[in-house]
Amino acid sequence: MPYKEVANAKVSPAVARRARKIRVLLCDVDGVLTDGHVWLLSQLDGSTLELKGFYAQDGAGLTLLSIAGLKTGVITGRKSAAVERRAKECGMEYVRQGVAVKIPVYEGILRDAGVTDEEVAYVGDDLPDLPIMKRVGLAVAVANAMPEVKRAAHFVTAHSGGNGGVREVVELLLKSQGRWEELVAKSRA
Amino acid sequence: MPYKEVANAKVSPAVARRARKIRVLLCDVDGVLTDGHVWLLSQLDGSTLELKGFYAQDGAGLTLLSIAGLKTGVITGRKSAAVERRAKECGMEYVRQGVAVKIPVYEGILRDAGVTDEEVAYVGDDLPDLPIMKRVGLAVAVANAMPEVKRAAHFVTAHSGGNGGVREVVELLLKSQGRWEELVAKSRA
Amino acid sequence: MPYKEVANAKVSPAVARRARKIRVLLCDVDGVLTDGHVWLLSQLDGSTLELKGFYAQDGAGLTLLSIAGLKTGVITGRKSAAVERRAKECGMEYVRQGVAVKIPVYEGILRDAGVTDEEVAYVGDDLPDLPIMKRVGLAVAVANAMPEVKRAAHFVTAHSGGNGGVREVVELLLKSQGRWEELVAKSRA
Amino acid sequence: MPYKEVANAKVSPAVARRARKIRVLLCDVDGVLTDGHVWLLSQLDGSTLELKGFYAQDGAGLTLLSIAGLKTGVITGRKSAAVERRAKECGMEYVRQGVAVKIPVYEGILRDAGVTDEEVAYVGDDLPDLPIMKRVGLAVAVANAMPEVKRAAHFVTAHSGGNGGVREVVELLLKSQGRWEELVAKSRA
Repeated sequence: MPYKEVANAKVSPAVARRARKIRVLLCDVDGVLTDGHVWLLSQLDGSTLELKGFYAQDGAGLTLLSIAGLKTGVITGRKSAAVERRAKECGMEYVRQGVAVKIPVYEGILRDAGVTDEEVAYVGDDLPDLPIMKRVGLAVAVANAMPEVKRAAHFVTAHSGGNGGVREVVELLLKSQGRWEELVAKSRA
Repeated sequence: MPYKEVANAKVSPAVARRARKIRVLLCDVDGVLTDGHVWLLSQLDGSTLELKGFYAQDGAGLTLLSIAGLKTGVITGRKSAAVERRAKECGMEYVRQGVAVKIPVYEGILRDAGVTDEEVAYVGDDLPDLPIMKRVGLAVAVANAMPEVKRAAHFVTAHSGGNGGVREVVELLLKSQGRWEELVAKSRA
Repeated sequence: MPYKEVANAKVSPAVARRARKIRVLLCDVDGVLTDGHVWLLSQLDGSTLELKGFYAQDGAGLTLLSIAGLKTGVITGRKSAAVERRAKECGMEYVRQGVAVKIPVYEGILRDAGVTDEEVAYVGDDLPDLPIMKRVGLAVAVANAMPEVKRAAHFVTAHSGGNGGVREVVELLLKSQGRWEELVAKSRA
Repeated sequence: MPYKEVANAKVSPAVARRARKIRVLLCDVDGVLTDGHVWLLSQLDGSTLELKGFYAQDGAGLTLLSIAGLKTGVITGRKSAAVERRAKECGMEYVRQGVAVKIPVYEGILRDAGVTDEEVAYVGDDLPDLPIMKRVGLAVAVANAMPEVKRAAHFVTAHSGGNGGVREVVELLLKSQGRWEELVAKSRA
């Protein structure tokens, strides 16, 4: 579907209040930075290589966030060189892969960034994301999230993961913080 | 489409009765664990490598099933290292690839698992799946299945293969067996 | 979209008459056996590998046709090992790749198969398919074909290329020739 | 969605006037010649390979443009062998990759082609495309472009990038210049 911008009118005052405090945006990977498809290429020697599909407009959004001075990162159960590279391309600060239990890793990021729960937004799509979502100031579920995850979220994106969901969160944060126009103007120059 | 949960109200009593007995879930691969696309990468030496796209939320569902003590597996006509790896990631017990005629392999699984037809659910999408679907206690067709396969099924999923169809079957089984809430609660902890 | 079967009621008598005579089904590849996406993988040495996405249900349909005794094949402008392998998997007789001008190659197939124009069906999606479509007994355009190609077709499929369009043509041929039930019954056994 | 042809009735006289003057068509790559997905394949040594999905009908359109004597090209922030090869396949004149700031590169193309701003069309989807879009005679946004980009465009395509958006621009240019029928007739021969 064509990307629909975040209209201030559609964001509740409660969500806008939460968004204004955010200094760190953390994302799950599969189903959030990708559309949830896990691609495996079979090689002749019986090994497999993993392929991941990210979204250019999500990546450009994450780059805007880091230009604006916010920190971004991923916490994911899987592990791949693709995520490492993509995180670097998008200016991400935190890349935590192969994480079975997410809370201790989340708490490590809080300490490193010197922020509290209220200053963190987290975007998830499935059950393992619930523990962090109960903690953060702004819990976001993408459009393709499981019903239990949507019910636990403060905000549900109109776009799916890997198809603009994260861009929408970037826009929500920068608009709530009154910085979107400034960053678009820089791009226009 | 966004994932829609299995509402008890939408499951007929006859299907719920069948689902309560299931101890083993078997799936076809192409069109069921994937969306039916067969990807081939041409190499410079004239050989080809096969790529398959699985779905994270289907995989997480299969993992929930195995945590709940049910056994899962695949029976497929094609053969690839990708299926082997994905099956392992999702805690599958039975990985039967390169199977031209599915019934003898199916019967071998019955013996190994010590279950009867009534205790097996099978998810298919095309004509070669019909012989097993005539046997099992719960025959499921994904949304993208051929019309002949849908007509042979006790239950047709709202989601397509490789896009939540198998997650929906997992939910159907665990909800019918009264175990869904317990497993979601574990994820929330 | 879920696959919709070919209902006899929706096939005009003129198309059914054409379909009854067909003994050879020829297809373009990109946009017909695939959804038209041309995937290129960049390697570190600057070379590229091509990836193609075929559809399991199309392939199973082509296999049914060859079981039924019809001949199948492809004529395509591009060239890849993937098409060679996929053609073999589906029991195709004619694999003509790297074909800039399609008519001479088409005529070679006519001679080899010992058939006339009236006995050939061809499925296309774009302008280079027009010359053959003007010749054959049954010219088919997939749902994603260019408007000029649809206007030149006797039949336009409801499904897109690489997503059931070719399966639909298989069903049209076998149903028109009164052989569909027999072949489905074989699969059920 | 099935491709919908460019109807003269739907093109405003102002856009048609702009289109008549165009001698060079430049495109962004990600989100314009592709659907915006950036695919990364993780290799065992920790390196990654990039995969891009182009669209056959877009490529055939670009080839028609070059047969008609117009020049085509890409200006993109990323860099890959895939774009180099695809550009060659489609008869593109200008392939400018790894471009962080697009305006100087754009001006170099103007000089090389000996054209003015009014004779260039540019197709974009995201904020970094805005500076060139403010300059060219015909600024086009694909259906999946960001709202800011659509607002800056003279023409918004009905189709998305990597799914016919560029084919639609080709049709717009050749129809406005009264050359479409001539080129289709050549294909029919």
